[in-house]
Amino acid sequence: MIKIGVFGYGTIGKRVADAVILQDDMELVGVTANKYNYKIKSAEKKGISVFPISDNSHFDLLEKSDVVIDCAPKKVGFENKSLYKKFGLKGIFQGGEKPDVGPSFVAQCNYDDVAGEDFIRVVSCNTTGLCRTLYAIDNEYGVKKVHATMVRRAADPWDIHHGPINAIVPILTLPSHHGPDVRTVLPDMDVFTTSMTVPTTVMHVHSVTVDLEFETDVNSVIELFNNTTRLRVVKSSDGIRSTAEIIEYAKDLGRSRGDMPEICIWEETIGVLDNKLFYLQAVHQESNVIPENIDAVRAATESCGQEESIRKTNESLSIV
Amino acid sequence: MIKIGVFGYGTIGKRVADAVILQDDMELVGVTANKYNYKIKSAEKKGISVFPISDNSHFDLLEKSDVVIDCAPKKVGFENKSLYKKFGLKGIFQGGEKPDVGPSFVAQCNYDDVAGEDFIRVVSCNTTGLCRTLYAIDNEYGVKKVHATMVRRAADPWDIHHGPINAIVPILTLPSHHGPDVRTVLPDMDVFTTSMTVPTTVMHVHSVTVDLEFETDVNSVIELFNNTTRLRVVKSSDGIRSTAEIIEYAKDLGRSRGDMPEICIWEETIGVLDNKLFYLQAVHQESNVIPENIDAVRAATESCGQEESIRKTNESLSIV
Amino acid sequence: MIKIGVFGYGTIGKRVADAVILQDDMELVGVTANKYNYKIKSAEKKGISVFPISDNSHFDLLEKSDVVIDCAPKKVGFENKSLYKKFGLKGIFQGGEKPDVGPSFVAQCNYDDVAGEDFIRVVSCNTTGLCRTLYAIDNEYGVKKVHATMVRRAADPWDIHHGPINAIVPILTLPSHHGPDVRTVLPDMDVFTTSMTVPTTVMHVHSVTVDLEFETDVNSVIELFNNTTRLRVVKSSDGIRSTAEIIEYAKDLGRSRGDMPEICIWEETIGVLDNKLFYLQAVHQESNVIPENIDAVRAATESCGQEESIRKTNESLSIV
Amino acid sequence: MIKIGVFGYGTIGKRVADAVILQDDMELVGVTANKYNYKIKSAEKKGISVFPISDNSHFDLLEKSDVVIDCAPKKVGFENKSLYKKFGLKGIFQGGEKPDVGPSFVAQCNYDDVAGEDFIRVVSCNTTGLCRTLYAIDNEYGVKKVHATMVRRAADPWDIHHGPINAIVPILTLPSHHGPDVRTVLPDMDVFTTSMTVPTTVMHVHSVTVDLEFETDVNSVIELFNNTTRLRVVKSSDGIRSTAEIIEYAKDLGRSRGDMPEICIWEETIGVLDNKLFYLQAVHQESNVIPENIDAVRAATESCGQEESIRKTNESLSIV
Repeated sequence: MIKIGVFGYGTIGKRVADAVILQDDMELVGVTANKYNYKIKSAEKKGISVFPISDNSHFDLLEKSDVVIDCAPKKVGFENKSLYKKFGLKGIFQGGEKPDVGPSFVAQCNYDDVAGEDFIRVVSCNTTGLCRTLYAIDNEYGVKKVHATMVRRAADPWDIHHGPINAIVPILTLPSHHGPDVRTVLPDMDVFTTSMTVPTTVMHVHSVTVDLEFETDVNSVIELFNNTTRLRVVKSSDGIRSTAEIIEYAKDLGRSRGDMPEICIWEETIGVLDNKLFYLQAVHQESNVIPENIDAVRAATESCGQEESIRKTNESLSIV
Repeated sequence: MIKIGVFGYGTIGKRVADAVILQDDMELVGVTANKYNYKIKSAEKKGISVFPISDNSHFDLLEKSDVVIDCAPKKVGFENKSLYKKFGLKGIFQGGEKPDVGPSFVAQCNYDDVAGEDFIRVVSCNTTGLCRTLYAIDNEYGVKKVHATMVRRAADPWDIHHGPINAIVPILTLPSHHGPDVRTVLPDMDVFTTSMTVPTTVMHVHSVTVDLEFETDVNSVIELFNNTTRLRVVKSSDGIRSTAEIIEYAKDLGRSRGDMPEICIWEETIGVLDNKLFYLQAVHQESNVIPENIDAVRAATESCGQEESIRKTNESLSIV
Repeated sequence: MIKIGVFGYGTIGKRVADAVILQDDMELVGVTANKYNYKIKSAEKKGISVFPISDNSHFDLLEKSDVVIDCAPKKVGFENKSLYKKFGLKGIFQGGEKPDVGPSFVAQCNYDDVAGEDFIRVVSCNTTGLCRTLYAIDNEYGVKKVHATMVRRAADPWDIHHGPINAIVPILTLPSHHGPDVRTVLPDMDVFTTSMTVPTTVMHVHSVTVDLEFETDVNSVIELFNNTTRLRVVKSSDGIRSTAEIIEYAKDLGRSRGDMPEICIWEETIGVLDNKLFYLQAVHQESNVIPENIDAVRAATESCGQEESIRKTNESLSIV
Repeated sequence: MIKIGVFGYGTIGKRVADAVILQDDMELVGVTANKYNYKIKSAEKKGISVFPISDNSHFDLLEKSDVVIDCAPKKVGFENKSLYKKFGLKGIFQGGEKPDVGPSFVAQCNYDDVAGEDFIRVVSCNTTGLCRTLYAIDNEYGVKKVHATMVRRAADPWDIHHGPINAIVPILTLPSHHGPDVRTVLPDMDVFTTSMTVPTTVMHVHSVTVDLEFETDVNSVIELFNNTTRLRVVKSSDGIRSTAEIIEYAKDLGRSRGDMPEICIWEETIGVLDNKLFYLQAVHQESNVIPENIDAVRAATESCGQEESIRKTNESLSIV
């Protein structure tokens, strides 16, 4: 049993803790807490051990753990790294950290490359989403060039502080950071992204256009996506007409917290024109990196190979 | 075992079906379906029997059931009533039907009054919410007069068709229908309501002001609400600062679909000034009438008394 | 000609500057600027003199002015007061300042009380809105007690930083500050308010309930509102069904910036039940205090009486 | 003086009427009305003659006009065409009509091609927006291929009926209709579009990527856009960070109804990578086709040439 400490108990941290509990090769030692609130109350009700930072209890957590999954806010993870080193721990970081915190990771793309590393960086929800579809496409048809317009949800559902309420906000760094970030996982991928923020809390949507090496057709792409792990082809003709209905579907399926960790591609938006491929995919920012965090633990500890790890994670989380 | 058919499989119908499955004295015979979509696919995955209306299979459902819970769209329930009569069934209707469909019902207010009735009407989410708190207040302090401003969510989370996106829309019927509807359950309650619609999908909020017969203070009211079933006093100081965080809390608690069937009153908004009581309560329109539907079945069939029914329903649904 | 300097050039400041230009007894000396942006560019295009604070030019503005209208952000006005004193200026402040900055003011309620004062505080948009209708009602029918639920727009239209995007947020101070603030203008008004924030940018809406001394009926109240300055009775039956359509109406009327400085009461929401009066009113937070700022200048300088000032202001701004 | 009748008085009709009044070579005979509401009241206040359809007064309007600008709802325009023919009128239609209603038109692209035509179709706001920038780019650098992701506002500001409130909705026809529609104006433009709807009322945003024939750089593109009529390069560094602030800027400029008929390109989003050009442009759906309607009248009547017409229209509407 790999003993896991979870550092930070927000959107990602609480989901990672739930997922760790479901693994038969891992044990959740506990989670840290900055302040006592409803999230911590719920954790205690579930029987999760909470180690407050205020009284330095988090050192106890580190002492009892083999691997720490750092879900602290952006940039705090990097500051924590030296602490984890001091305690002789392996560490998994999130995509809010800069790439120099450790090799970047998407389970189905580069598991073997990071196997045995002490520190691994699970890339952001958007980068993970791009990597999952582009890696499959590249293997099958060869990717020459990618352009993606990233239409981002402005805030998470619980977040009442961030706007906009009624505007579209262009992200002005060009290229947006997602292109370079994809290359930390898939170094040869020539990908350029434009992004904007819109007033919704539910999911991000990517409009992806790919210049292919080899010809294909729509049915072949649908089949490819259907056969790729952690992707889900959804259909408007089934009533899944929007990001909101993807989440409704997740709730109907009995998914914990209404989560949809798979990247969802609308079948009706897949198009092929000459050697260009187009599609729209939706990314559930709260949950799609959770399976990667679990797999990253196994990669870091070399406790099993890629295929086995993905299978175990998927089964425990009912992922297709 | 009471054999239950669920007619209609939308927002309420699918939750009612899930709840019926959890009762040890009920058996879900199946649900009807109008069209084949992701909701029906999910039902089948769960092993729920689906009776399409298109090929008249719903008659089979009616034949095999003792009680039908009608979750059809507004006004369709009334049309179905004669059908249920023909099949010799008892029927539970929703608040979208007019009061003449059967006596109105809120479990903790008037269970005994409707016991043995063939047709019972579970009142709307908003009316149920008002009845739960006002009944408790009336019992304890005596209610002289109530005014409530109902601030309504404009659409359910999955509903992409209804607006407004950026406006507040006054409801122009005065009094809004909630006042008279409360009196179908609590005939002596002098309640007047004003209402408006706002661009959110999460929950309704009621701003309630009550003229009391007897004096009280804030702590006494908090205690009263804490001791009343299907109410939940929430605190901003615990981080529950909005309707969105109430739903986040429900997800953290592991509630199915992130539902919060309890009416939530913010502790910090409870105020007493002379003989006036003020509070803000939040109503989860998708789920708060689900326990009433279950209790209504037991009331109609007189299979057990009020206290036992509420206890059984609460335990099966983890309601406080 | 009264020489006016405008301190601060945001939502209120730019509208006040436009309004000053339209007065035949005032001269706009100029406005201050903190940073050079599109607002300042537009001011320059209109021929407005801009006095940057960065190079201390604002001292020139103060030297050339008789009265300064302070439209600086909340609490900055108070800090500026000593500066205005040093320059021997009269000052008009906004409702974001605490009441001790100077006597509170709503033109149609207490013009004579503040006449000749060196420093006057124009109360907030919400307080101004409550004072305008309640003062008229009190004069006609006698007000015993008021409860208002304030449903507040979460951010101004241009403001992309504030949320919530999809939640209702209760304001937890009880009573919300609007009740006491009304009493700074109308000391005998027994008013209690509850408030919440909703995801819209357009207007605030108040649900007001008034216990009256004397009986009345709906038609009499409509007539009263129609005969009171700076109120506008709107009708859903004319197609004005929401706050959004009030602003559309303002645009159709050719109002500058699509502003609606009048408080708008929906005729269909006015109700009378025994001695209780109910109505819903909409408040355009960006513009409704602009006429008060102009009148406050005349009150402070005693350049004319209440009736004349309101008439001049209304005519220049096309207010009914 | 060209005598103009405006058929339909909604979002476009009322703006077209206002614009006609400002032309020194046109006379507004009047507008038709379906029902009496606040829009018609405002028209009457401005002195615009209203011809109700209910009593067949619209025939009078047609009799007195030389050209009718049809601003009726989608598809109704086509039905009206035979009526206009019967009265011997020239007619201008909107982009909601199918292309067979008459040759498609964007003033700066194909004025001469439609000169003298009896019936002209002003294309939709989105198509007009694409044509304005792409035509300029094609002339200067040669366009090989275009892909645009259209992120559409879900409803106009006044429209309270359409959602979604909190979702992103993919448009499932692929290619979306904008590509073929662009080719009705620019037949050789190889353009493919993907589109989705987001919960905002303010403006559409297009993420455009163009494969160029000839090399260029960012500064050259900025200069090109600055020198092209009806385009406006805006800067985030000036404080114009979102679609909402574009409209705030329009209000600050004193534009009627806060309209921004120019297509706005954010300078900071213009990028060039090898022979690919990227930019984000915002389209004000309520107003950007207004100048085209005016120019279409002059093209249909051959009353002047392209350059003069655009100059006259721009000056009268203060367009850059």
